[in-house]
Amino acid sequence: MAAQEEFFAGIPKIHYSPSARPADVLCFKHYNAEEVLMGRNMEDWLRFSVCYWHSFCGTGADPFGSPTLQRPWNEGTPMQSAKKRLRAAFEFFTKLGVKYYTFHDRDMAPEGSTLEESNRNLDEMTDMALDLQSQTGVRVLWVTCNLFAHPRYMNGAATNPDCHVLAYAGAQVKKGLDTAQKLGAENFVFWGGREGFLSIHNTDVAGELKHMANFFKMAVKYKEKIGLKCQFLIEPKPKEPCKHQYDYDAMSVIGFLKHYGLENDFKLNIEPNHTTLAGHSYEHDVVMASAFGMLGSVDSNTGSPDLGWDTDQFPMDIRNATLVMKTIIEQGGLQPGGLNFDAKVRRESTDLEDLFIAHIGAMDTFARGLRNAVCIIEDGIIAGMVKDRYSGFSHGIGQKVEEGSASLEDMEDFIKQNGEPKVTSGKQEKYESIFNHYI
Amino acid sequence: MAAQEEFFAGIPKIHYSPSARPADVLCFKHYNAEEVLMGRNMEDWLRFSVCYWHSFCGTGADPFGSPTLQRPWNEGTPMQSAKKRLRAAFEFFTKLGVKYYTFHDRDMAPEGSTLEESNRNLDEMTDMALDLQSQTGVRVLWVTCNLFAHPRYMNGAATNPDCHVLAYAGAQVKKGLDTAQKLGAENFVFWGGREGFLSIHNTDVAGELKHMANFFKMAVKYKEKIGLKCQFLIEPKPKEPCKHQYDYDAMSVIGFLKHYGLENDFKLNIEPNHTTLAGHSYEHDVVMASAFGMLGSVDSNTGSPDLGWDTDQFPMDIRNATLVMKTIIEQGGLQPGGLNFDAKVRRESTDLEDLFIAHIGAMDTFARGLRNAVCIIEDGIIAGMVKDRYSGFSHGIGQKVEEGSASLEDMEDFIKQNGEPKVTSGKQEKYESIFNHYI
Amino acid sequence: MAAQEEFFAGIPKIHYSPSARPADVLCFKHYNAEEVLMGRNMEDWLRFSVCYWHSFCGTGADPFGSPTLQRPWNEGTPMQSAKKRLRAAFEFFTKLGVKYYTFHDRDMAPEGSTLEESNRNLDEMTDMALDLQSQTGVRVLWVTCNLFAHPRYMNGAATNPDCHVLAYAGAQVKKGLDTAQKLGAENFVFWGGREGFLSIHNTDVAGELKHMANFFKMAVKYKEKIGLKCQFLIEPKPKEPCKHQYDYDAMSVIGFLKHYGLENDFKLNIEPNHTTLAGHSYEHDVVMASAFGMLGSVDSNTGSPDLGWDTDQFPMDIRNATLVMKTIIEQGGLQPGGLNFDAKVRRESTDLEDLFIAHIGAMDTFARGLRNAVCIIEDGIIAGMVKDRYSGFSHGIGQKVEEGSASLEDMEDFIKQNGEPKVTSGKQEKYESIFNHYI
Amino acid sequence: MAAQEEFFAGIPKIHYSPSARPADVLCFKHYNAEEVLMGRNMEDWLRFSVCYWHSFCGTGADPFGSPTLQRPWNEGTPMQSAKKRLRAAFEFFTKLGVKYYTFHDRDMAPEGSTLEESNRNLDEMTDMALDLQSQTGVRVLWVTCNLFAHPRYMNGAATNPDCHVLAYAGAQVKKGLDTAQKLGAENFVFWGGREGFLSIHNTDVAGELKHMANFFKMAVKYKEKIGLKCQFLIEPKPKEPCKHQYDYDAMSVIGFLKHYGLENDFKLNIEPNHTTLAGHSYEHDVVMASAFGMLGSVDSNTGSPDLGWDTDQFPMDIRNATLVMKTIIEQGGLQPGGLNFDAKVRRESTDLEDLFIAHIGAMDTFARGLRNAVCIIEDGIIAGMVKDRYSGFSHGIGQKVEEGSASLEDMEDFIKQNGEPKVTSGKQEKYESIFNHYI
Repeated sequence: MAAQEEFFAGIPKIHYSPSARPADVLCFKHYNAEEVLMGRNMEDWLRFSVCYWHSFCGTGADPFGSPTLQRPWNEGTPMQSAKKRLRAAFEFFTKLGVKYYTFHDRDMAPEGSTLEESNRNLDEMTDMALDLQSQTGVRVLWVTCNLFAHPRYMNGAATNPDCHVLAYAGAQVKKGLDTAQKLGAENFVFWGGREGFLSIHNTDVAGELKHMANFFKMAVKYKEKIGLKCQFLIEPKPKEPCKHQYDYDAMSVIGFLKHYGLENDFKLNIEPNHTTLAGHSYEHDVVMASAFGMLGSVDSNTGSPDLGWDTDQFPMDIRNATLVMKTIIEQGGLQPGGLNFDAKVRRESTDLEDLFIAHIGAMDTFARGLRNAVCIIEDGIIAGMVKDRYSGFSHGIGQKVEEGSASLEDMEDFIKQNGEPKVTSGKQEKYESIFNHYI
Repeated sequence: MAAQEEFFAGIPKIHYSPSARPADVLCFKHYNAEEVLMGRNMEDWLRFSVCYWHSFCGTGADPFGSPTLQRPWNEGTPMQSAKKRLRAAFEFFTKLGVKYYTFHDRDMAPEGSTLEESNRNLDEMTDMALDLQSQTGVRVLWVTCNLFAHPRYMNGAATNPDCHVLAYAGAQVKKGLDTAQKLGAENFVFWGGREGFLSIHNTDVAGELKHMANFFKMAVKYKEKIGLKCQFLIEPKPKEPCKHQYDYDAMSVIGFLKHYGLENDFKLNIEPNHTTLAGHSYEHDVVMASAFGMLGSVDSNTGSPDLGWDTDQFPMDIRNATLVMKTIIEQGGLQPGGLNFDAKVRRESTDLEDLFIAHIGAMDTFARGLRNAVCIIEDGIIAGMVKDRYSGFSHGIGQKVEEGSASLEDMEDFIKQNGEPKVTSGKQEKYESIFNHYI
Repeated sequence: MAAQEEFFAGIPKIHYSPSARPADVLCFKHYNAEEVLMGRNMEDWLRFSVCYWHSFCGTGADPFGSPTLQRPWNEGTPMQSAKKRLRAAFEFFTKLGVKYYTFHDRDMAPEGSTLEESNRNLDEMTDMALDLQSQTGVRVLWVTCNLFAHPRYMNGAATNPDCHVLAYAGAQVKKGLDTAQKLGAENFVFWGGREGFLSIHNTDVAGELKHMANFFKMAVKYKEKIGLKCQFLIEPKPKEPCKHQYDYDAMSVIGFLKHYGLENDFKLNIEPNHTTLAGHSYEHDVVMASAFGMLGSVDSNTGSPDLGWDTDQFPMDIRNATLVMKTIIEQGGLQPGGLNFDAKVRRESTDLEDLFIAHIGAMDTFARGLRNAVCIIEDGIIAGMVKDRYSGFSHGIGQKVEEGSASLEDMEDFIKQNGEPKVTSGKQEKYESIFNHYI
Repeated sequence: MAAQEEFFAGIPKIHYSPSARPADVLCFKHYNAEEVLMGRNMEDWLRFSVCYWHSFCGTGADPFGSPTLQRPWNEGTPMQSAKKRLRAAFEFFTKLGVKYYTFHDRDMAPEGSTLEESNRNLDEMTDMALDLQSQTGVRVLWVTCNLFAHPRYMNGAATNPDCHVLAYAGAQVKKGLDTAQKLGAENFVFWGGREGFLSIHNTDVAGELKHMANFFKMAVKYKEKIGLKCQFLIEPKPKEPCKHQYDYDAMSVIGFLKHYGLENDFKLNIEPNHTTLAGHSYEHDVVMASAFGMLGSVDSNTGSPDLGWDTDQFPMDIRNATLVMKTIIEQGGLQPGGLNFDAKVRRESTDLEDLFIAHIGAMDTFARGLRNAVCIIEDGIIAGMVKDRYSGFSHGIGQKVEEGSASLEDMEDFIKQNGEPKVTSGKQEKYESIFNHYI
């Protein structure tokens, strides 16, 4: 990238500086990429990824306000601007020291007036991306297709009442899968922002669900045909933009996949901001997806629990980060998934440096979460308490239940012989106090 | 029941009196049991059921207040009181003209100090119930076991960390299934009020889910063994009393059932009050469960959308009742399920007549919903608009998607030939205006 | 308007046609402007107003999607387009038969590159509006200034940390008040979309509240200076776009106004969509504002209680409309306020006729609400039950409480003489059943 | 208390032991009562108080379950049990090292069958309390009357439609104020759990509000008459047990007080659990009440943001505690108010020691919050950034706005001379990152 324009002038490579002062916000105080914890580098546990749409395409517009973010890469024709943006992004990835990025097809290259033109734009941009990837070593965590922003998708993509629209979505996904292969993406995400309904009056729910399943089956078949190796992921969200989305939460998606026989072809990309919108706690869907063996990746962001929409804030809560990292470590890591910062600087955070500050703050938050979780797991105190709590299932009648060989008659016999169980405290406050010790 | 005490003295058999005045609240103005709509009596479409716990065991206590409801049947020893209660209930069913009732094992007979004593109490009470059923023709819509109120279940029943408690729940369900068979119950419901978690710190989610599945499998096996014919139902609820319940909503239960291979043995009992607590609209889980072929029964009640707990109010919203009845008619009715009034008079509604007024008001509401839904369906205007909206899936590329024979390559070819889809209005406001015409 | 372009070709003046068929959605089935109820024309009870921003400036963009609504008036330069838009709007008002409209300064005329240019644009457009008003008899229900969309207001207008921005807002309001006077607006509304905070960390709450109060005082002083007669209104909203807005709900605004001595200069414009976002029921803030003598006007729209953002849907719920109209009649009407349709067609409702269908459906909904409320009030059954319920406050110890002359010692004496109060049922279900009779 | 029964045998006085191990949960690791921070002892900043109702009267019953907590003091007649309970409580206060407690009249002494009997019970118990207070040095932070649990209050206390019930509440408050004086309570709290409505249909809102105001005025007058020195506090809560409570949140209460001229006689007792139920963030009402000069005391507890009811959990979130303590320090402390643990051990936390563990965990959490807040304030970095952000209001046009001497004409002139304001980043993520540094 010799003699290239520098977009983030004055901002150097971000370093680990654990003893920096409070107001020093352009260094890592906790994230130390190469440091080994439980046999793995921090960067391999965390697998951070920068998202292209918020950080490089975001304008700061909101439903009540015009764009606020003036970015130096937004100059010239759409394709000129796209190229500047890509260079700015790789400068950012490199200075920040993050090894992955994620993007929608339409983030990287502008939509043309025809599918063919859109595809040509994408080809041109991904040639450039491939080059930058090889220069920098930065890789694609996942690609996804934007099947929600264009007006044609207003009534749905795979669930549109008009099969012509569904066909358009299919054509777009075909190109998206080709792109994933070209760039060596490790995953491919489906987020069905418009797959759901606004009004039950005009909707054939059963019909739409079947179309969605058939759409996914086409994608699976094409993936196999071209020999694409990446993991397919579905990202649940309960609502917004739809009143109700079919992929409401982790369990909704799991139920859908199993109903249509798709469970071996997909895992889940969990976004905590969506999880809280669905009425669960921050870590809930991460835990549930993992319990069902379906946790593939995490969109590391946060909402405000007192707000009812997707705020996509940078995650800054150390407790939440600890809970998520504990689950991730317990399942052996997220690979080929990662922690994707599907988060945007506030529209009022108009300085270019705010992009760095926000990512650094969030990376430090997750680094602290990782350190905490490692301490919790290595100490083994909480795990030991939990193991003890369920110890009755390792022998006797408990073991028969565990193995599935017990009957209701066995249960009745046991109670007739043993009477009332003894009272056992759940000790929630003790667990919470010990957990706090590590934070 | 010669020479029996009359509990609701002064309240006669409730009749259909369509021209009654506004303040006449002890008659039906809309519900006409024998009237035939779309080839079926109103009472057969609606299959109303009175619930025993709220209407005959309810005390009016709430988390901030002591009991307010003084009932004449609460006199004497627990068993004497249980018998008075049962007679009062059958007097109520008969005067109201409702053919079904539902109960928990512990509503009908007091828990003893041992399982054996509890079972003897239940035997004695169900002998009496069987007698009253045969005298009155009133039948059991469903039985369920109370696996949440006794302190032993505070940490869960089928998901308790202590297998001794799980065994107790199993013994209780065994007796519950025997009771269902004895009384000819048409369904058996599982509501897992304590099956979930309060704190993720002390919980082995994957282990608990497996125990719950194995518990259900024991119940299925025992049902088969004794030749019990009733439909098994699971009632979803997102939270309360737990922070998070495993049976969060319809899709969570469907996902769970399919994961553990239980989907042919269970259907869902949907409670709209639980549906709104889960973040969905009133009718949502009724529609979703029906779309997946899993809608078995409905607990016809309502909450207040601005409150975050289970208020179990009598349903009085005609629009909501219309939406629910439309779905029920479209799937051919609810049988062997029904509309169970899992609703309680407010704790301030202390008059005995309030029990009648509340049920009558709710039955009239659902009768209006039924009449509206029948008009909508018989007119066919909305159905015609919906059919037209999806008509593209009956031929050409749409038909191939519908049948599952299309590929992404087909999609791309179609778009290359046909370009951009045309814009089609979703016309939500038109649907709403027409729907309002029927209300 | 001779030889003018017709924007809604094919749509005639909308008439009252009570016996129209279900699918006839371009006529009123319930709203009959001239019909007299309780001594006043329907149109005078309802005082409907069309809002300019949603219906004529709306694009259909949402946070996840591009504009969907193609409007024939969006052609040419910004000022050319503004003029076409204004003509289209008056064609719409006239055909629909609505006598009022509302607008933001920036809806009617495009913002220029300086304040002076913006003001000139506005002058030119309001000249034309004045002309159209006099031709058609349509009047301005209220004007408001858009102090939230321009990027300069991203951190607040009257509460901006930068006094330069506050000054800009003040200059804009000065022109807004001049405009209100020029067009004979009956009210002037303040909606503080950005007056609140996103992060408590960077906010001086007490300072900002004082600035906001001083800002309002400047507006009051200028209003008096120019002899403007219109009613000032504040429109509460809890959140969105802010995380927390200072004008959270009716009581927050009342508290603020009274703290700063502004309560005689302002009333409230209540929007039910904001009321439900604040955690209240649909009618709540209408009732509360009226109880405090502060209800000035109503933004008649609705949200979805299961969604956490401002959906601004057309109100279609007859029960809610009845409750609102009952309160309005009981306080003697809304004048000089009205029912402003701060509602937008769904972004999927792309046909021009959908604008008519939506307004007609909502007007019929409120007309039904009005008819129901009139029946309830004229029958007097519910009012009589309520009066009876509180009758103890008209004599004896109750009267002393009512008048403020009783003491705690009186209370104790009364109880020592009279002991425990008797139990009185609240009879909620009876009220609900009777209310349902009228719907 | 020689030769008294020991209720918490085996639990010693709790000490500060900063280097204790993670599983040591019966010592303070952060709370060091005598340690001086910013010129004041930790115990004087924090002013912890144990609440009597949850910790000594709580049974573990919930709406779906029977009591779970077996307490050794619940033995004998109601008065015998009350005395054991009081001794247990003082043993607990002393071992824990907390200097304050709070109670409802009916917590400390059982309700009799008449007011006179209730008062005698209370006299007897408060004699004993006075004795224990003087032996131990423990004092009453506040007293309150339970005007919600008895069935007579089901339709309200001060807002009951039956003035007989209002009189009962008045008689009870008279005795409550006498009790506050006798025991030297530093505050007296009103929590209007039943002051609100369940149904708008049967409620005269304006009438009820006036009765509530007159009720408060009687209390103020009686307080003056007897020369009682304590601070009156109102505790807002949005809902539960009512559907809607008049004291919804801080601003609602402030509006009410100012409307009825009561603002000089009351401050607010803010409970974060109620604040989040009202749709605000945890710290919100603490901040708002403080900004209006109305923050009197804090009920230090927490809810779960994903649950919609009052869970009254022990506060364990260090970030939230930091935000609350920062506000408290900035207003110079809470005295005569304090941090009252209106929190209950989970019903599954059945061990007696859990009472200690929970309080210790929460006290350590607030101690960490205090330490963090002191660091933030002493460092001054955040305060300096905020001061700088608003610096424009200290001179020129900003100063005129601040002082209330500016006019809209001044604003317009300023803009005509100075044009568009410059863009200034809000830097939320920077503030969050720096804040995280202190946690």
